[in-house]
Amino acid sequence: MPEDEFEWIRKHMPDRYHQAGLIEGIGDDAALYEPDRNRIEIICVDTMVEGIHFRKDTLSPEDIGHKALAVNISDVAAMGGFPVFYVVSMAIPPQWTDEDLSGIYRGMKHLSDKYEADMIGGDTVSSPHDLVITVTVTGYTEKNTRLLRRNARPGDVVFITGPTGRSAAGLKLLLDKGRHALYTATEKMLISYHQRPQPRVKAGRIAADLKSRISLNDISDGLASEAWEIAEASGVKILLNEAQLPEADELKGFPVGQRLDWMLYGGEDFELIGTIPAADWPRLQNMMAAADQPVFSIGEVTEGPASVILNTKIGKDEKLTKKGYNHFK
Amino acid sequence: MPEDEFEWIRKHMPDRYHQAGLIEGIGDDAALYEPDRNRIEIICVDTMVEGIHFRKDTLSPEDIGHKALAVNISDVAAMGGFPVFYVVSMAIPPQWTDEDLSGIYRGMKHLSDKYEADMIGGDTVSSPHDLVITVTVTGYTEKNTRLLRRNARPGDVVFITGPTGRSAAGLKLLLDKGRHALYTATEKMLISYHQRPQPRVKAGRIAADLKSRISLNDISDGLASEAWEIAEASGVKILLNEAQLPEADELKGFPVGQRLDWMLYGGEDFELIGTIPAADWPRLQNMMAAADQPVFSIGEVTEGPASVILNTKIGKDEKLTKKGYNHFK
Repeated sequence: MPEDEFEWIRKHMPDRYHQAGLIEGIGDDAALYEPDRNRIEIICVDTMVEGIHFRKDTLSPEDIGHKALAVNISDVAAMGGFPVFYVVSMAIPPQWTDEDLSGIYRGMKHLSDKYEADMIGGDTVSSPHDLVITVTVTGYTEKNTRLLRRNARPGDVVFITGPTGRSAAGLKLLLDKGRHALYTATEKMLISYHQRPQPRVKAGRIAADLKSRISLNDISDGLASEAWEIAEASGVKILLNEAQLPEADELKGFPVGQRLDWMLYGGEDFELIGTIPAADWPRLQNMMAAADQPVFSIGEVTEGPASVILNTKIGKDEKLTKKGYNHFK
Repeated sequence: MPEDEFEWIRKHMPDRYHQAGLIEGIGDDAALYEPDRNRIEIICVDTMVEGIHFRKDTLSPEDIGHKALAVNISDVAAMGGFPVFYVVSMAIPPQWTDEDLSGIYRGMKHLSDKYEADMIGGDTVSSPHDLVITVTVTGYTEKNTRLLRRNARPGDVVFITGPTGRSAAGLKLLLDKGRHALYTATEKMLISYHQRPQPRVKAGRIAADLKSRISLNDISDGLASEAWEIAEASGVKILLNEAQLPEADELKGFPVGQRLDWMLYGGEDFELIGTIPAADWPRLQNMMAAADQPVFSIGEVTEGPASVILNTKIGKDEKLTKKGYNHFK
């Protein structure tokens, strides 16, 4: 825990800001900025807790910083927006060193620089036991963009921006052997999907550009759970086709049942799942392809009651459970 | 800890929103709003940790909610703004009941309704040991308002919006006897200053209206510490006059030394301290008086080096220390 909050701020405050709209960044009671009058604003917040979302043996400080920010940028992406500003609160227990904390800030900065997003405020306090990091992100999207969960209608195509399950597989490896063990190249890839998941901002921007009736959700809590959210918010049944689910090459060495479980219920892949009117689906495919963004049709939307059904490879319909992703259980 | 996050959201989400600019509140990946094009935006974040900033025997759940939001609204006030939206993150340990958590939300809502500010997002996660609550508030102020710490200049009047030290005195009582003990009317007042401090939004708005060169800081960390922040940011010496410091009636029963210590170093009063050119001071006084807002001149700004000096009642100059407020030490 740093002795003097002001020293601390000076040490970690950005040496420059990217955003022209920023009036006053870190260092006063609050930050000031001129909002973009041509866009609407997005805000979201997410918290990661030591022992619940990460441990020192699953994530490095840089990974923690990356992930605490990425999980929010992923939410902004799911609204069709891009990140602009963020503020960071850290509750810091005595056993975390100054060097650990610098690593966390580096991890955030490395990711936010990619988007030219600026850290413009924060709070650092002490914590009796566990590190708790809360990041709030603001972003923008175009004025008429509403990529909401309640937008799905019968007849829509269900799509996803990439394979799921790699983050959960990576976590399994980390829980078995820790982050300092020797891993194969494939295992390292899986671990990096857990430690440094990449939000799908570009794909979300394309979905926004399309001006269609799109529902969109980021997969932080597992494919099944996020599909359920769309199904419930829209009052529709979502039919997923197992044969259409994209499978990651890196998962091929694992038993089939384990693989499918990770793909459906593993969290924190940060792919986007959504629905779009069938008539607009080819247009979405083309725009994604033109921008080198993967997208896969994985099912369709039908009349309710709200539920998520998986048509398995052997032709059976299975109702998927709503359960959310739980890291360490 | 609530079983189902969605149940939880449904239970605690506001039944109506106040802000016309809100497009999408709680319930999707993020909230959406149309920013006010005639104003600039303010953002700040603050965290309260169980065992560090409060304990179950010092604050009720409603108090915790009130205070977690108030500490942020106080920051917005110190920028001359008013609160508009907020998002709430809670890390919740097993021993906190659903009823406790409802109380926290009630405490926030009770305060935010006063300002017609809306809770538009949040995150609830579990925590192994301590309750950690982080609130991020956005607000607005007028386009050319810059009530920054670096604005103080030699010759300015130093002012404060009310007496300090009551919150610290209230905390002392609570630490000695707990919040369920029998207290006198005066003691109850002191305790309420600790449990339900009121941010000085109206006073901050008047300071903004004045269109003067004002520095402003809210007193969350003690009068001396906040004066130091202005002194350092502006590179000036701040001279405070002990005889001019407003003294709360409720503190009169305590020993003089203890009283002064609380007034200078006790935190969380949420009064505003600031500086203003001497020529504009009468105008500030008049506007504050017209709005029933107390304001006191307590000293003056002189040439640096950056420091805070107290001219005591016996005519001695004492350099005040920069130390911040520490709750339980």
